[in-house]
Amino acid sequence: MPDGDATKGEIKTPSCRFCHGSNGIAPRPDYPNLKGQQAEYLYNSMQAYLDGSRTGGMSSMMKAQLKNLSDQDIADISEYYSQMK
Amino acid sequence: MPDGDATKGEIKTPSCRFCHGSNGIAPRPDYPNLKGQQAEYLYNSMQAYLDGSRTGGMSSMMKAQLKNLSDQDIADISEYYSQMK
Repeated sequence: MPDGDATKGEIKTPSCRFCHGSNGIAPRPDYPNLKGQQAEYLYNSMQAYLDGSRTGGMSSMMKAQLKNLSDQDIADISEYYSQMK
Repeated sequence: MPDGDATKGEIKTPSCRFCHGSNGIAPRPDYPNLKGQQAEYLYNSMQAYLDGSRTGGMSSMMKAQLKNLSDQDIADISEYYSQMK
């Protein structure tokens, strides 16, 4: 996992907020909160959506959301949510 | 999802704590924190592990952990972690 930059991560999350909340608390009970989540878990989850190894739930939506992001983008986004207080 | 009982849920989580922490904060950065997570998301995730629709990550470990639990158990456990402060 590349070192993530939370400041850059914030800039890269305009679409994440609709489902995961602008404060990292999901507006729906069936969507996960991301606030304070483990950065490496988030990074691995997003990579697993991209490579298809993680299925179920909103996996196809997540894959579509992530497909244009680089590994560094994903690390930055992971760090951003992980550091959220 | 059945209505969950957090008090009963606590009793049903002896094995969860090894990977998710006794305080709901995972001891490893590649395992998810569960503290304060959305109950319905947790419930749906565990059901998806059980029915095989959720793959990737630690899905086979999770399926083994959950296989002897009832829907009510899973709702209680979900509520327990969701209410953790």
